Amino acid sequence: MTDILPDARNLAFELYEVLDAEALTQRERFAEHNRETFDASINTARAIAEKYFLPHNRKSDENEPQYVDGAAELIPEVKPAVDAFLEAGFLNATRSFEQGGMQLPTLLSQACFTQFQAANIATSSYAMLTMGAANLIETFGNEEQKQRFLQPMIEGRFFGTMALTEPHAGSSLSDIRTKAEPAADGSYRLKGNKIFISGGDHPLSENIVHMVLAKLPDAPPGVKGISLFIVPKFLVNDDGSLGQRNDVTLAGLFHKMGWRGTTSTALNFGDNGECVGYLVGKPHHGLNYMFQMMNEARIGVGMGAVMLGYAGYQYSLDYARNRPQGRLPDGKDPTSPQVAIVEHTDVKRMLLTQKAYVEGGYDLGLYASRLVDDSETLPTEQERKDAHQLLDLLTPIVKAWPSDYCLKANELAIQILGGHGYTREYPVEQYYRDNRLNPIHEGTNGIQSLDLLGRKVVMNNGAALKQLSALIQDTCQRAGEHTELNGLREPLEKLHAHLGKVTLSLLGNLGQGKVNEALANSILYLNSFGHMVIGWRWLEQAVRAQQGLNAGNPADADFYRGKLQAARYFLTWEVPSCHHALNLLESLDPTCLEMQDAWF
Amino acid sequence: MTDILPDARNLAFELYEVLDAEALTQRERFAEHNRETFDASINTARAIAEKYFLPHNRKSDENEPQYVDGAAELIPEVKPAVDAFLEAGFLNATRSFEQGGMQLPTLLSQACFTQFQAANIATSSYAMLTMGAANLIETFGNEEQKQRFLQPMIEGRFFGTMALTEPHAGSSLSDIRTKAEPAADGSYRLKGNKIFISGGDHPLSENIVHMVLAKLPDAPPGVKGISLFIVPKFLVNDDGSLGQRNDVTLAGLFHKMGWRGTTSTALNFGDNGECVGYLVGKPHHGLNYMFQMMNEARIGVGMGAVMLGYAGYQYSLDYARNRPQGRLPDGKDPTSPQVAIVEHTDVKRMLLTQKAYVEGGYDLGLYASRLVDDSETLPTEQERKDAHQLLDLLTPIVKAWPSDYCLKANELAIQILGGHGYTREYPVEQYYRDNRLNPIHEGTNGIQSLDLLGRKVVMNNGAALKQLSALIQDTCQRAGEHTELNGLREPLEKLHAHLGKVTLSLLGNLGQGKVNEALANSILYLNSFGHMVIGWRWLEQAVRAQQGLNAGNPADADFYRGKLQAARYFLTWEVPSCHHALNLLESLDPTCLEMQDAWF
Repeated sequence: MTDILPDARNLAFELYEVLDAEALTQRERFAEHNRETFDASINTARAIAEKYFLPHNRKSDENEPQYVDGAAELIPEVKPAVDAFLEAGFLNATRSFEQGGMQLPTLLSQACFTQFQAANIATSSYAMLTMGAANLIETFGNEEQKQRFLQPMIEGRFFGTMALTEPHAGSSLSDIRTKAEPAADGSYRLKGNKIFISGGDHPLSENIVHMVLAKLPDAPPGVKGISLFIVPKFLVNDDGSLGQRNDVTLAGLFHKMGWRGTTSTALNFGDNGECVGYLVGKPHHGLNYMFQMMNEARIGVGMGAVMLGYAGYQYSLDYARNRPQGRLPDGKDPTSPQVAIVEHTDVKRMLLTQKAYVEGGYDLGLYASRLVDDSETLPTEQERKDAHQLLDLLTPIVKAWPSDYCLKANELAIQILGGHGYTREYPVEQYYRDNRLNPIHEGTNGIQSLDLLGRKVVMNNGAALKQLSALIQDTCQRAGEHTELNGLREPLEKLHAHLGKVTLSLLGNLGQGKVNEALANSILYLNSFGHMVIGWRWLEQAVRAQQGLNAGNPADADFYRGKLQAARYFLTWEVPSCHHALNLLESLDPTCLEMQDAWF
Repeated sequence: MTDILPDARNLAFELYEVLDAEALTQRERFAEHNRETFDASINTARAIAEKYFLPHNRKSDENEPQYVDGAAELIPEVKPAVDAFLEAGFLNATRSFEQGGMQLPTLLSQACFTQFQAANIATSSYAMLTMGAANLIETFGNEEQKQRFLQPMIEGRFFGTMALTEPHAGSSLSDIRTKAEPAADGSYRLKGNKIFISGGDHPLSENIVHMVLAKLPDAPPGVKGISLFIVPKFLVNDDGSLGQRNDVTLAGLFHKMGWRGTTSTALNFGDNGECVGYLVGKPHHGLNYMFQMMNEARIGVGMGAVMLGYAGYQYSLDYARNRPQGRLPDGKDPTSPQVAIVEHTDVKRMLLTQKAYVEGGYDLGLYASRLVDDSETLPTEQERKDAHQLLDLLTPIVKAWPSDYCLKANELAIQILGGHGYTREYPVEQYYRDNRLNPIHEGTNGIQSLDLLGRKVVMNNGAALKQLSALIQDTCQRAGEHTELNGLREPLEKLHAHLGKVTLSLLGNLGQGKVNEALANSILYLNSFGHMVIGWRWLEQAVRAQQGLNAGNPADADFYRGKLQAARYFLTWEVPSCHHALNLLESLDPTCLEMQDAWF
C-alpha cells in the first residue's frame, strides 16, 4: 500500500535543519523536551493515524453521515479513531503538564496533527473543531465556564463547534440575525438559525459545546455588535453531570462534494424559545475573540490543504514509478520496453510542481506554527510582539496559498493517474474533492486578500512587512554564499522589490481615499505575495539543503538534490510569473471594477 | 429555474456576426438552408435538451449505472432522452437528405449538439460515441459493413463505441495486446481486454457496434501494426436481423468522479475464443483511420468542456445577481442594505474570467466546426486543403484549451457560490466533476502538446502556422481601425511575435536532433499557443462587437459592451501572462528534464 503520510525525512529536515526545533527546548516552557520526545510524539501520531484514521478514509466518503431521528449517524470507524487520538493526548498536546497536556510546542503539535489530516481529513476535523472551541473558552471564558465546559473538553468527553454562518450571512458576519436575550438567571436565551456548522451533531461525545455568534438586544449595528456564547447540546449541572437537552435542533445535513465524513449541519437555536446560552467575555466583543483565535485555526486549514496535496503527491509519485507507459521522444523503437511514466518530462513536471507546492506549503505552515511558539515563549515582550505581528501578516497566506495551490497539486495527481485517477477506485479524486473546501471555509480566499492588503499590510505603518522584508533579505544574503544556488536568489529579489514598490503605490492610493480602486484587484496581491513568501521559504530550504549536501552524507544526497530542484522549479518557473499581476495592480487596472452587471 | 443552456443571443452573435453562417447557404451542399432553418434546428435542439436532457442530469449523477447480471442498467430517463434526440434527427444532422439526414453544416450541427452537452453531458455522450463510430464506418468501411452496421446506426437502432484503451496501454496505443486472428469466412476472431470504454454496455439500443483496435498476427511492431475492427455485441444476419450474442463480455463498470451517467466499461473480447470481428479498411491502418476521424471527436470533447464551463458560468451569474452579501469597500455602513455579490469586484472578476474562458472556447469550437465545413465544401481543392490544414493545427488547442480553462471556470463558479457551491444541493460541483475528465480522455493534454509541437507545427514546413499568422494579422489590422479597441491588439501582436520567435528556435533545436530538450516543456507551448489562439478569437469578437455597437441598436448595447470587456480582460490580463513560459521554452529550460526519479 502506498504510504501517503508526510514523508518522515522531509519532516525531520523541516524540524531540525530548517526550523531548529531543538532550540525551543532551551525555553523554560519546553525544557522537559528534547529531540527524542519530539520524535516520539510524531511517531505515535503517525502510528495512530495509520492504524485508525487511514483505513476508513474512503469508506467515510462513500458513507456520509445520515440524518436519523433528529441526529447525525456516522460510520462506526470514526469513534475508535477519535478515541485513540484523545487517548494518546493529542487534543491537549500544547497544554501544560498541570492541565494534563504534553506541553509540546505548537510546532510539534501541528506536525503531529498533520499526520491525522493526511490520513483522514474528515475524521481529524472533529478534533480540530474541539481544539478551536476549547481554546476560545480557555482564552476568553470565565472560571465557571472553564470548569463546566472546558474541563470536559480537555478530558475528551465534550466536543466543540464554531457556529458563525447563517443562511443570509456568510462572508458578511455583521449581518447575522441570531438573537440572545438576557434571562433572569444571568444566562441568555438564543434564537436563530446557523448553517454549515461542521461537527454540529455526531455520536462521538457525551456533549457538544457550540461557540455561537449572536446579537444582544442592545447591540450596535455591524461587527461591533456581535457577542460570543457557549450553547451546549445538553445543559450541564453544577456537579458536572449532564442535564436536560438544550433547545438546539439538528435541522438537517448538507451533502458536500467532498470532506463527507464530517457532518455539515443546519442547526436551529431556540425553536421552542428555550435555548440556553452563556455569554463569553464582554458583550459585543465576540467577533474580536474569534479573530484572536483565528491564527491557529487558519494554520490548521492551510495545513489540511497541504496534507491533502501531500497525500496526492505521494500517491501519484508511487504510481508514476510503477506504471510503464510509452517511450521517450528520442527512443521511439516500439519493440523496446516501455519506461515508467516518471521518466517522461511532462510527468516529472507534474510531480515537481506538486512537490514544490506541498513541501513549500508545509514549510510555511510549520514556520507559522513556530511563530506561534515564538509569540508565546520568546524571552522579551518585544520579541513576542514581533513574532505575533509577523504571524498576523502571514496568516492570510498560510490559509489561502495552500488552499489554492495544493488544490492544483491534487488536480495534477489526478492527471498523472490518467483515466485511473478519474475513478473512485483510486484515492486522488477524493483528495481533490476534499481539498476543494479549503479556499471557501475559514474566510474565503477573496476575504483573505482583503484582510492582507486592507489590514495586515497597513497595520503599524507596514511594520510587519518590513520584518518580512528583512527576513527575505537575510535568506537571499545567505543564499548568495553558495555559488550552487546561482539563479535562485535573483527571481525572489526581483519579485520582492517589485511587490514592495506596488505595495507603496497601493497604500498611497488607499491614503488618498481610492479604496475601491486600490482593493479591486486584491486577489492578485494575495497571489503574488503568497508566491513571494513561498519563494522565500523555498530559498531558505535550498540554503539548508545545500548545507546538508556540502556536509556530505551520501545517504542524503538524493534528498537534498530533490530539494534543490524543487526550489529551482519554484523560483525560476513560478516566482517570475507574478510580475504581470503586479503591473495590473500598480496601474489600478479597472477591467473588473468597471464591469457592469448588465453587461454579463 | 436558472437557464444554464448556451445563451441564445451569444450563439446568434457567433453564427451570424462572427462566423457568417449564412454565407454557407451559398454552397451547393447547404443551398436548401437559410437562417430560418438554422435557427429552427437550434430551437428544436434546445427544446429537447430542456425537456428530456436537463431534468435528469443530477439524478444520473446520483444513480450511476449498475452492473446487473452481466449488463449495465441505467436510470429510466436516459432512453426517452436519447430517443427524442434520434427522433428529431440530430444523430444525422450533417448527413445528406438522401441518407435521411438534415444536410446541415457541421457548424450548425455542433451548435445544436452543444445544447445537449450543456443540459446533460453524460446522456449526450451515448449519441456522440455513436456518431463517431458511424463516421468511422462511413469513411473507411466497405459497402457490406455500411449496409449491415452503419445503416442501423443511422436509423438509431444500433449504438457505437470506440474501444482503444487497454489496462497496460492508454496513451501508448502502440502497446495494445488485443489480437485478431483471421477466420476461414474472412472475418476475424478477437482476443483481448479493453478498459474505460464509454457506452460499452447499456440498454438503449438493439445492438452496440464496438470499433476495436487490435493487432493481426503479422502486424509490424508499433503504431503501424494496429488494425481497426467492427465487433458487434450481437452478430447481424444477412437480412439485418440480430443473430447470436457475440463473445464480448461486460467485465465490470468503473466508478468515476463525475460524468457518472455514461457507463465506463471493462470489456473482454473472446473469453471463449469466439469473438467475431470484421476488419475495416486495410490491415495495419487502424490508428491512421482513428486519427483521421479525430478532428470532429476532439471538437466534441472541447465543446463538452466549454458547455460544462458555460453551465457553471450562467448558474453562478444568476446566483451572484440574487445573493445579497456584504457591502462595497468604501460603503461599510452596517445599517445600509447588503449589495448583490455581483457588485463585488472580486466576484465580477470571477464572472468575467468565466465569461472570457467559456465564450472564448465556444467561439473557437464553432470556428473549428466551420473549418470542417470549409474543408468539405469550399469551391477549390486548394481552399479545402488549406481549411483542413488549419483545422489540423488547431485541433489540439480545440481539445486541450477548453478542457483546462473551462475546468478552471467551474472552479470559479463553485467559489462564487461559496459554501453552497460545495454542496450537492447546487449543480456547480457536478459540472466541475464532470469536466475533470476532459483533460484526460481523447488524448491527455500532455499528448496534445506533443501533437501540437512535434507534429502539427512542423507539418508542411510550418505552412499551417503561417496560415494562422496571416489570420491573426488580419484581425489585428481590422482591430486597428477602431480606436475604441486601443490596447487590445498590442498584447496579441506581442504574444504572436514572441511565439513565432520561440517556435523557430524550438524547430531549430528539433532539427539539430535535440528532441528530448525541445519537446521537454511542450505543455508550456500548448498553453501559450492556446492563449494566443483564444486571444485572437477574442480580438475578432471585439471587432464584431464594436461594429455591432457602432450600428447603434440600443437593445444590444449591453451585450456588446460585455463582449468588449471580456475581450479586454482576456487580452490584458491573460495574454501577457504567457511570456515567461515562452522564455522558459526558448532557453530549453532543463529543470523538469533533469529531475531524477531518485530525487523525488
